[in-house]
Amino acid sequence: MPGMLAVFVDEQSRPEGSRVTSMRSFRSVDDAAVQAVLFDTFGTVVDWRSGISAAVRRVEAGVDAEAFADAWRARYDPSMEPVRSGRRPFVTLTELHRENLTATLAEFGLDLPLEEVDDLNHAWERLPPWPDSVEGLTLLRRRHIVGPLSNGNLGLLTRMAKNAGLPWDVIMGSDVTRRYKPQPEAYLRAAAFLELEPAQVMLAAAHNDDLAAARWSGLSTAFIPRPTEHGPGQTRDLRPESDWDVVATDVIDLAHQLDARP
Amino acid sequence: MPGMLAVFVDEQSRPEGSRVTSMRSFRSVDDAAVQAVLFDTFGTVVDWRSGISAAVRRVEAGVDAEAFADAWRARYDPSMEPVRSGRRPFVTLTELHRENLTATLAEFGLDLPLEEVDDLNHAWERLPPWPDSVEGLTLLRRRHIVGPLSNGNLGLLTRMAKNAGLPWDVIMGSDVTRRYKPQPEAYLRAAAFLELEPAQVMLAAAHNDDLAAARWSGLSTAFIPRPTEHGPGQTRDLRPESDWDVVATDVIDLAHQLDARP
Repeated sequence: MPGMLAVFVDEQSRPEGSRVTSMRSFRSVDDAAVQAVLFDTFGTVVDWRSGISAAVRRVEAGVDAEAFADAWRARYDPSMEPVRSGRRPFVTLTELHRENLTATLAEFGLDLPLEEVDDLNHAWERLPPWPDSVEGLTLLRRRHIVGPLSNGNLGLLTRMAKNAGLPWDVIMGSDVTRRYKPQPEAYLRAAAFLELEPAQVMLAAAHNDDLAAARWSGLSTAFIPRPTEHGPGQTRDLRPESDWDVVATDVIDLAHQLDARP
Repeated sequence: MPGMLAVFVDEQSRPEGSRVTSMRSFRSVDDAAVQAVLFDTFGTVVDWRSGISAAVRRVEAGVDAEAFADAWRARYDPSMEPVRSGRRPFVTLTELHRENLTATLAEFGLDLPLEEVDDLNHAWERLPPWPDSVEGLTLLRRRHIVGPLSNGNLGLLTRMAKNAGLPWDVIMGSDVTRRYKPQPEAYLRAAAFLELEPAQVMLAAAHNDDLAAARWSGLSTAFIPRPTEHGPGQTRDLRPESDWDVVATDVIDLAHQLDARP
């Protein structure tokens, strides 16, 4: 990480109450080789728009399924805000998704049986991976710890991984760090749980704002464009907006680039 | 689980501050099919005595390596007690192992360079699996979520899994639940993180006392004997001491028994 001379992690950024042995000593930048590559998941590893719209189409033929998926997802970030600010106690993404689904159903004037609502909410656990994700992660994990660094919760991410065949080494989830990205502790606690320094952890993401927050916390960064995450008319995150440590075409390319490092 | 009619989980047993959606409704015993099989790890999945004594032998030729391993491990349970009782804030097992190693070195009159002490402490991340562990977990994960339910912390368990090739779906660790077994919350929070009811989670362990605590919290139970965990003269845990839901000869047998269920 050019220009970065020191990584400082204060007590509060660590898992509550725990000290981390490997942080006792101050290490030089040369020791900061990336040990773990953690991934933003929705949009970066899995294709939420295709997965959710397909699930919507299965339960309700009369609706514009992509529009429904976009509307449901549009409530995602605002619904986390009261939790981030502390106005609301921590609740899992499974619960926020469920509340947002209820609101989206009302917005579209839909009235589904409770069982179908519950089942639709679990569509987030059955999202399809992008074509390169499984192969890329399989390559990457030969030399690195791989896992999600997602606002999804542990149960959701575990079932998503089993359904999609994602070969994670470890799954944390926002209910483990108890912080929603882009709060700094979301990144710092993930590193601390792995007993790694922030720079030894790389966030790989298709979103420039996520990478900016990760870098601000001292993590290494990799950008992977996903130009159709938001459908054919996507305008944002089509290219890297900063000098991220790695810019890769997909997860397979990221694995090759990291393997080529000394 | 015969004779168990209801599973009640109070607020305090869930991850702090979180409600778990899947627990909203009261489910009947028929719904309590095992979804996840979580394993005690040290002794049940990996052979700590062989691994630690081999590591000791490598750094210090003049010591009885098995005696050293036994002495180090003997400090394990007592060192967690102040944390369990709340007299000491939570610290990870990596840190407790390090403190216990310092004490054991003193007990044996050994004075190693700091670097070798640090390296020896990481021997817990390089323990060999029992011969059936990898194959058994591979079979088991086809139909179940598999993971450790260990007093080890997340970083330690993640590196252990990579070194030993353990195909876990998810890794929690005691620093995620923030409780050391046999505290009830260690079992209950693991289930809650997976958004499962306790009976839908099975603890597999070579230790009767661990299974008793898991059952007390409502988990399903499987006993796997490891008659040489403590060496050739082992006297404890040679057989099941209660009517555990499953008694298996090893992890492969456990997978076959669970696969045979309807």
